[in-house]
Amino acid sequence: MHPPRRPIDDLANGFVRRHIGPSPQDIRAMLRTVGADSLEALMDDTLPAAIRQRAPLDVGAPLSETEALEHMSELASRNQVFTSLIGQGYYGTIMPTVIQRNILENPAWYTAYTPYQPEISQGRLEALFNFQTMICDLTGLDIANASLLDEATAAAEAMALAERSVQKKTKAFFVDHDVHPQTLAVLRTRAEPLGWQIIVGDPVTDLPQADVFGALLQYPGSSGALRDPRPTIAALHAKGGLAVVAADLLALTLIASPGDLGADIAIGSAQRFGVPMGYGGPHAGYMAVRDSLKRALPGRIVGQSIDCHGQPAYRLALQTREQHIRREKATSNICTAQVLLAVLASMYAVYHGPEGLAAIARAIHRRTAVLAAGLRKLGFAPRNEAFFDTLTIEVGDQQDAIVARAREAKINFRIGDGTLGISLDETTTPKLIEAVWRAFGGTLSYAEIEPALRDTVHPTLKRTSSYLTQEVFHLYRSETELLRYMRKLSDRDLALDRAMIPLGSCTMKLNGTTEMMPLTWAGFAQLHPFAPPEQAEGYHALFDRLETWLTQITGYDAISLQPNSGAQGEYAGLLTIRGYHRARGEPHRKICLIPSSAHGTNPASAAMAGMDVVVVACNERGDVDVDDLRAKAEQHSANLAAVMITYPSTHGVFEEHIREICEIVHAHGGQVYLDGANLNAQVGLARPGDFGADVSHLNLHKTFAIPHGGGGPGMGPIGVKAHLAPFLPGHPCCDDTGPDGFTHGGGTVAAAPYGSASILTISYIYILLMGGDGLRRATEVAILNANYVAQRLDPHFPVLYRSERGRVAHECIIDPRALKNSTGITVDDIAKRLIDYGFHAPTMSFPVAGTLMIEPTESESKAELDRFCDAMIAIRREIAEIENGRWKAEESPLRFAPHTVHDLVEEQWRRPYSRAVGCFPAGTARHDKYWCPVGRIDNVYGDRNLVCSCPPIEDYALAAE
Amino acid sequence: MHPPRRPIDDLANGFVRRHIGPSPQDIRAMLRTVGADSLEALMDDTLPAAIRQRAPLDVGAPLSETEALEHMSELASRNQVFTSLIGQGYYGTIMPTVIQRNILENPAWYTAYTPYQPEISQGRLEALFNFQTMICDLTGLDIANASLLDEATAAAEAMALAERSVQKKTKAFFVDHDVHPQTLAVLRTRAEPLGWQIIVGDPVTDLPQADVFGALLQYPGSSGALRDPRPTIAALHAKGGLAVVAADLLALTLIASPGDLGADIAIGSAQRFGVPMGYGGPHAGYMAVRDSLKRALPGRIVGQSIDCHGQPAYRLALQTREQHIRREKATSNICTAQVLLAVLASMYAVYHGPEGLAAIARAIHRRTAVLAAGLRKLGFAPRNEAFFDTLTIEVGDQQDAIVARAREAKINFRIGDGTLGISLDETTTPKLIEAVWRAFGGTLSYAEIEPALRDTVHPTLKRTSSYLTQEVFHLYRSETELLRYMRKLSDRDLALDRAMIPLGSCTMKLNGTTEMMPLTWAGFAQLHPFAPPEQAEGYHALFDRLETWLTQITGYDAISLQPNSGAQGEYAGLLTIRGYHRARGEPHRKICLIPSSAHGTNPASAAMAGMDVVVVACNERGDVDVDDLRAKAEQHSANLAAVMITYPSTHGVFEEHIREICEIVHAHGGQVYLDGANLNAQVGLARPGDFGADVSHLNLHKTFAIPHGGGGPGMGPIGVKAHLAPFLPGHPCCDDTGPDGFTHGGGTVAAAPYGSASILTISYIYILLMGGDGLRRATEVAILNANYVAQRLDPHFPVLYRSERGRVAHECIIDPRALKNSTGITVDDIAKRLIDYGFHAPTMSFPVAGTLMIEPTESESKAELDRFCDAMIAIRREIAEIENGRWKAEESPLRFAPHTVHDLVEEQWRRPYSRAVGCFPAGTARHDKYWCPVGRIDNVYGDRNLVCSCPPIEDYALAAE
Repeated sequence: MHPPRRPIDDLANGFVRRHIGPSPQDIRAMLRTVGADSLEALMDDTLPAAIRQRAPLDVGAPLSETEALEHMSELASRNQVFTSLIGQGYYGTIMPTVIQRNILENPAWYTAYTPYQPEISQGRLEALFNFQTMICDLTGLDIANASLLDEATAAAEAMALAERSVQKKTKAFFVDHDVHPQTLAVLRTRAEPLGWQIIVGDPVTDLPQADVFGALLQYPGSSGALRDPRPTIAALHAKGGLAVVAADLLALTLIASPGDLGADIAIGSAQRFGVPMGYGGPHAGYMAVRDSLKRALPGRIVGQSIDCHGQPAYRLALQTREQHIRREKATSNICTAQVLLAVLASMYAVYHGPEGLAAIARAIHRRTAVLAAGLRKLGFAPRNEAFFDTLTIEVGDQQDAIVARAREAKINFRIGDGTLGISLDETTTPKLIEAVWRAFGGTLSYAEIEPALRDTVHPTLKRTSSYLTQEVFHLYRSETELLRYMRKLSDRDLALDRAMIPLGSCTMKLNGTTEMMPLTWAGFAQLHPFAPPEQAEGYHALFDRLETWLTQITGYDAISLQPNSGAQGEYAGLLTIRGYHRARGEPHRKICLIPSSAHGTNPASAAMAGMDVVVVACNERGDVDVDDLRAKAEQHSANLAAVMITYPSTHGVFEEHIREICEIVHAHGGQVYLDGANLNAQVGLARPGDFGADVSHLNLHKTFAIPHGGGGPGMGPIGVKAHLAPFLPGHPCCDDTGPDGFTHGGGTVAAAPYGSASILTISYIYILLMGGDGLRRATEVAILNANYVAQRLDPHFPVLYRSERGRVAHECIIDPRALKNSTGITVDDIAKRLIDYGFHAPTMSFPVAGTLMIEPTESESKAELDRFCDAMIAIRREIAEIENGRWKAEESPLRFAPHTVHDLVEEQWRRPYSRAVGCFPAGTARHDKYWCPVGRIDNVYGDRNLVCSCPPIEDYALAAE
Repeated sequence: MHPPRRPIDDLANGFVRRHIGPSPQDIRAMLRTVGADSLEALMDDTLPAAIRQRAPLDVGAPLSETEALEHMSELASRNQVFTSLIGQGYYGTIMPTVIQRNILENPAWYTAYTPYQPEISQGRLEALFNFQTMICDLTGLDIANASLLDEATAAAEAMALAERSVQKKTKAFFVDHDVHPQTLAVLRTRAEPLGWQIIVGDPVTDLPQADVFGALLQYPGSSGALRDPRPTIAALHAKGGLAVVAADLLALTLIASPGDLGADIAIGSAQRFGVPMGYGGPHAGYMAVRDSLKRALPGRIVGQSIDCHGQPAYRLALQTREQHIRREKATSNICTAQVLLAVLASMYAVYHGPEGLAAIARAIHRRTAVLAAGLRKLGFAPRNEAFFDTLTIEVGDQQDAIVARAREAKINFRIGDGTLGISLDETTTPKLIEAVWRAFGGTLSYAEIEPALRDTVHPTLKRTSSYLTQEVFHLYRSETELLRYMRKLSDRDLALDRAMIPLGSCTMKLNGTTEMMPLTWAGFAQLHPFAPPEQAEGYHALFDRLETWLTQITGYDAISLQPNSGAQGEYAGLLTIRGYHRARGEPHRKICLIPSSAHGTNPASAAMAGMDVVVVACNERGDVDVDDLRAKAEQHSANLAAVMITYPSTHGVFEEHIREICEIVHAHGGQVYLDGANLNAQVGLARPGDFGADVSHLNLHKTFAIPHGGGGPGMGPIGVKAHLAPFLPGHPCCDDTGPDGFTHGGGTVAAAPYGSASILTISYIYILLMGGDGLRRATEVAILNANYVAQRLDPHFPVLYRSERGRVAHECIIDPRALKNSTGITVDDIAKRLIDYGFHAPTMSFPVAGTLMIEPTESESKAELDRFCDAMIAIRREIAEIENGRWKAEESPLRFAPHTVHDLVEEQWRRPYSRAVGCFPAGTARHDKYWCPVGRIDNVYGDRNLVCSCPPIEDYALAAE
């Protein structure tokens, strides 16, 4: 009943061959190693027969790369690139081409992973450190994280931060009525399951009456109004609430910073720092807080520490805050950032420097002032007296006529209730302003109106504090110097363009060049997310087809593309379950069963969705203990909301009992949330929607080829069965009815209706290029590669979990814990020693402490797998030298790893092994070695001496005196 | 009388600030160092007052980068991308996107210089070695060079090679009448000044009667006809002539190679190996020869040698063959290659491998056979029975109607005399073939005609020899593996993205990212050079404006864009002089005066233009000895054709007497050829056309920002005064009347009418972005930077030549010869030691043996200049340690340089200096060091044991047995 068997050679041409690492010959050789007659036979061994997919994947025949780009070009041409003056958090901007080509389009940057191995991530860590410095300086606050998903989710995180920091009885949060509507929607969605109240009003008139744990003010307001928030903040503080200010970073170059105004938290978006709108994303949200709140700050924080030579080195600081560590107490499921976008924004600041940013801001403001003056001449008075870049104009019944004339000129305004909003940006020219005036019915000359104007943004809010005085924001004004700086940083990092990154659970597969090309085309990059949908026909055709494909791949009935990270997808998926139970009159169903092996984000997401977590045990094979599950389901039968299960399991095994698990939960009225993190082991072979799951999120940045970007962006769309479809995420600015025909009426989980829309092009092209057979072959080879690695390594490091038939899925856990007992060598030592061999380490201590989880993906060739296995086996031999007493652990190359040129150049070499053994261990080539820029980093020192932004240059001067 | 003085800060914004390295503050500091009050004052010191340009440069106000790209997009949209089936040496092709992004669009590749410093060029040397291997294998010959400019000039070089190798009395060369017309035109142009006769005819019927030193056969013919050339070659050999075969590389995957057929020389184009047509270029020409001819092979050859550790290492082999060494005997002025394009073509072969290339060729041939069968059904019999990819169809008086219908379908054919030529390529689809049939008046189905056909290209010419069996053509089928290979190679090289390349005479300035973007757009990349001009309106608008700008910059009256290298420009310029004298009835004027300091290409170009070189002495300042010049001009007055002079001189000085020199030559009836190599010292400050020169070539890859591509492409357009304009290069396939109004009626010097048209976009955008003031500021800062370096280094290494006022121009020569005498340390030692400091060496031993010539260009910042000067001064201190006896030269870090990890890792360190001193000399950072992959390379070994291509894998197998 399986699809017809295809010979191994039948996909040996086209993109499928380029995407998949092993050649047909290699596949045959590897099958021999793992003891399987064919790929098909290996799949039969690996997946339970009960879940095998019967029909071939129906996603069409694969296109060639040329055909795919032609098709994308046709789609792009169906998007109309208007000049969008809509504002509302999204602005036209100019990415310097040198940054576009050498970061956004450079695999050394975009294929990197999250910098959990800091020694081999110093380049992007420095860029993120620059980002944090920039955010701290511009917001006037003490500590910033390395980015959040977008402004709206940053606002929700700020609300949660305020709630847990303030410890007030009240569970009410005040929101400025002049906040962006998508921010309000995300706040409402976040507050509801937690039982918090959102009070919307005018901060001046309404806040004084309210008893709240905090308030969010938009600065300048969404309408463009710029008001002095100091009295409001003071009043709020007097009653013990925290003040959150959503601030426009570019405006902050001219107006007083949130910190100067007394705010406790600042949040917002770094999009307009050179990152294209991309029909909604991706871009970097930001958050900065006062020092006293630093341990409550969600997200990743880059800190400076020292390495073993005492040299400064960057690392992720305060990691114990993160959800994957303190899972039961989690109140935020943030486990990702928008690293690539934060890097781009930071480089935009490095490129322009403070004087350049201020000049851009002044030019925008001046043009806005000229625009306002012209509109007044034409009889349209802007509603707001003080503004930075945005005007709201009362137009009454002239709205349609003005909008129609503007559309003629390919200009979009923000359409309000009898008003029009106009936001200018870096790209606005005098010509465009004249076109706006014409849309308002008058012919005026910019050159005539401009000279008369003063240049003050606000009478009392002029910025007086300095910012970006650090050297890095001043050294790189010439393109040559900036190019070299970016190259230098990228050379410090180890990404997929140099070596395999065998991180279990992360699916570091090829991010094909062709897949990466369209997203920077104007037809995809330059659309405003709230542009009229008829201007985005190409995007909507892409969304519809992608959603249809994803339903075919997963067996679900409907898809939401809104969640812009995997964790966001979990949260959104649980909200659909919550919505479903409530709609059926069972709001008490709040118990969420989660196996002990779950991803750390699972319990955090459940908590955010207002659920109570009950942990289910695993048996000695690592599988869910079905008896325990049955018992807990029965125990909580009346209140059972859901089970969250990862499949294949986080232990890298296809559990035989998955159908049974689903049936047990359904029998007790619960829903099955199947975490899609491991979908790369199933595509084309099994469909969660067929074997009992109700909802999954799909990590497009894992299974569907979106690059990890050094730690973001990601995309976590969710698929659901029909009964959950009405509860999929909705959005205040758009009516999302998918090709499934379901109207998505749930809460809002991200700022933009389709999440990070522009990178959906990547997954779309991936599917175009692979076709159904290619996707299935990719899955088969991913499983083959993992079994091959397991087979080769098992004699040296035992493989911890296998299926009953002795197979692993697409990843495997190897267990060096016995070696720690016998030699003291830790998993950390092995990970650092792998750097000397030229590899990124596998996933460490997840899901089992003290072990390594390896996921090779289908894109790694046999040659690279062998190189990796050889390195691991050589490391095992090195450990044997400790076992046999030749080396002490603390004097072994494993403990001194990673070796750097700093070691090598030491005149007195006092180690029991040679320089060559240290730096060029067994079998590694001296040519083309990746040199780790720093030695092993001291984590404790870094957390004890927290430095998370670059001190201003004056501090150095003081220190020198 | 100068243009108004502009304050230093007035160009501190926009692209000019990005292009120019030093900030306004830096400029002020550097002016203090060199002792000048202002840039203007420094220019007054540096340039003779007599030549100063009075009017500001009139090239318009600069555009922003965004505006420039919008403008280019508008130009691109005025080019119509038809499907060109014209053939004639140019074919549609598909550059794999992974190669486009990671080589063509990657500054690590495109900003590199010619690999004269092999230790820091191992990456592109390996890629070129692959290219040579590919050419040798496909052509079946023994040794190939690393590319030539294009097929037509390769044919001319082959003719010259045959002439000098054969030593026959006859000076006649036979040319197949089925050769591409542009090849014939270039051959005729090349032969004429040398007094050689070109005999055109049918090789079968006409060659037997001819007494010739060689013959060129096109294989397959330009018409598509495929004939077995063995009888012709045998007959030619019998009479002592050499057989040159112009072969299509892709066809050679299916048909017998030139070597197998008995040919002595093969030439052709590698364009269709993934390089876009680009309206004519650039792409790589190739040449391969039998082993016996290897020392006569022109161009660069990459060979394998060993380094000081005995490890294999690549280098340029047989360099003594090159024109810059044996200048007086030169018969070729080839001093450049198309490295970047050869690298691209080689990677295309690495990507596809032999089986992939053959599959592409078979698909093309099969489609051509289907096309032919269909045309026969429609009553159109192809003229040629056997063919690879090209058909010539007799269409008689239906030509206009067919062509009109084809144009409707956006298809171009090659239009002959009552015939149409149709060449298919890698991009041809069945749909397109059906459209061709429709143009011929019939509706046929590809699917119906296709199955019946056999698959034989030619009954007796089937290829039987194997090719590309080497490992490199088999390892990189997955995109991941290829990406890593390309990254690995690029990491071995030191290019402008990592450090200054202070090569005197090479002008290694910023190649701005924005300048590089449009050339890969379809609207520029995908035009066939012989497409109807009305389809190339955008290109022609660009040519016209660029020509106008170049006349304004140089003071000339007309420009030819045809020469596709600097040396080609010299040759073309001298041909205009030759044409002028002949037209005036003075064909005897053949004496060309050339100063002893000239570029090596100068005498070679003169020889090619049929001139006799008379060397003029230089005085002790390095200036032309005006008295000697006067004497020689008088002596040769009746026969004086020209003087070739470089200005500012190759010694880096503005000679005071340039006007006088021009006047002397003019007084004796000669013309002044002013070599434009050093134009970067004059733009905006002085115009050759104003101070007496009649013609110059302009190295757009130096002064006008085209990147050097690791040793090509370049562009060498020439500018002339009005009286020479009628003799500018013409072309058989196009009527070039420039914006100057002059019809260019001279010979043909390159295959394409506008040379490497696609990269003209780079220079065009450079001028757009800089504007007149920016260009002038660039020149001023280039001169300031050179004087700053001269000032800083002079106390340590004396500056050899200066003007009377003590200034250098845009470059300076420093003189370590005394140190060689006192310590034995050579200029080579200094150059290699600079690698340890992270720098590419300056130009060595040109124009003065034993010295270094430094040209910083305007794009290097003060910080980088200081880093370089500090390194040079530190090296001087190291030499002092030899002077004072602490080190012996042969045991010093200078002699062991460059230091590699191979040195560092040695357990026994027996040198009188430490590892740290070796690898991290004074002041260099341990972080971010560029590690040279090999130690100093043994040149002698490499030439004694010549290996210029990778042995086939079987050889390894044999060796192993």
